[in-house]
Amino acid sequence: MFKATVYVTIKENVLDPQGTAVQGALHTMGFDDVERVRIGKYMEIDLNTADRAEAESRLKAMCEKLLANTVVEDYRFELTEHVKEGV
Amino acid sequence: MFKATVYVTIKENVLDPQGTAVQGALHTMGFDDVERVRIGKYMEIDLNTADRAEAESRLKAMCEKLLANTVVEDYRFELTEHVKEGV
Repeated sequence: MFKATVYVTIKENVLDPQGTAVQGALHTMGFDDVERVRIGKYMEIDLNTADRAEAESRLKAMCEKLLANTVVEDYRFELTEHVKEGV
Repeated sequence: MFKATVYVTIKENVLDPQGTAVQGALHTMGFDDVERVRIGKYMEIDLNTADRAEAESRLKAMCEKLLANTVVEDYRFELTEHVKEGV
């Protein structure tokens, strides 16, 4: 089994209104030293696959097809293998 | 200047309807080996602070007050120092 951590971020040259809103809120709250906020998604996915190469190719497909909008977002992922405990 | 990466995740024993929906969508698309999906937030924050300890305490305050709902979410962050280039 593999545990995947997927990070989806808005591309550097694309506006991030959510980040701008959070930055404005932080300034209002007195956190004036905040210069830039970018907000992305963080996903933890458990994959019941024994083979690392297969897990990687399937994750890539999931990101391209569903998890990220590759027109405006970038993605990257990390895979760690977990051995199932028990019987 | 510090660059902070903040991860906000839903606590382990709290339901994650967004993750469940994504898992369902992945199954529908044929990714049957997906066993569990949890979705969180990923934030990049630039802090114009020279002192690491101060940056840490301010980030902690931001997380507690705005970025995370500590009743149902956990947060953690990483700080890396960046030296400003130029003049």
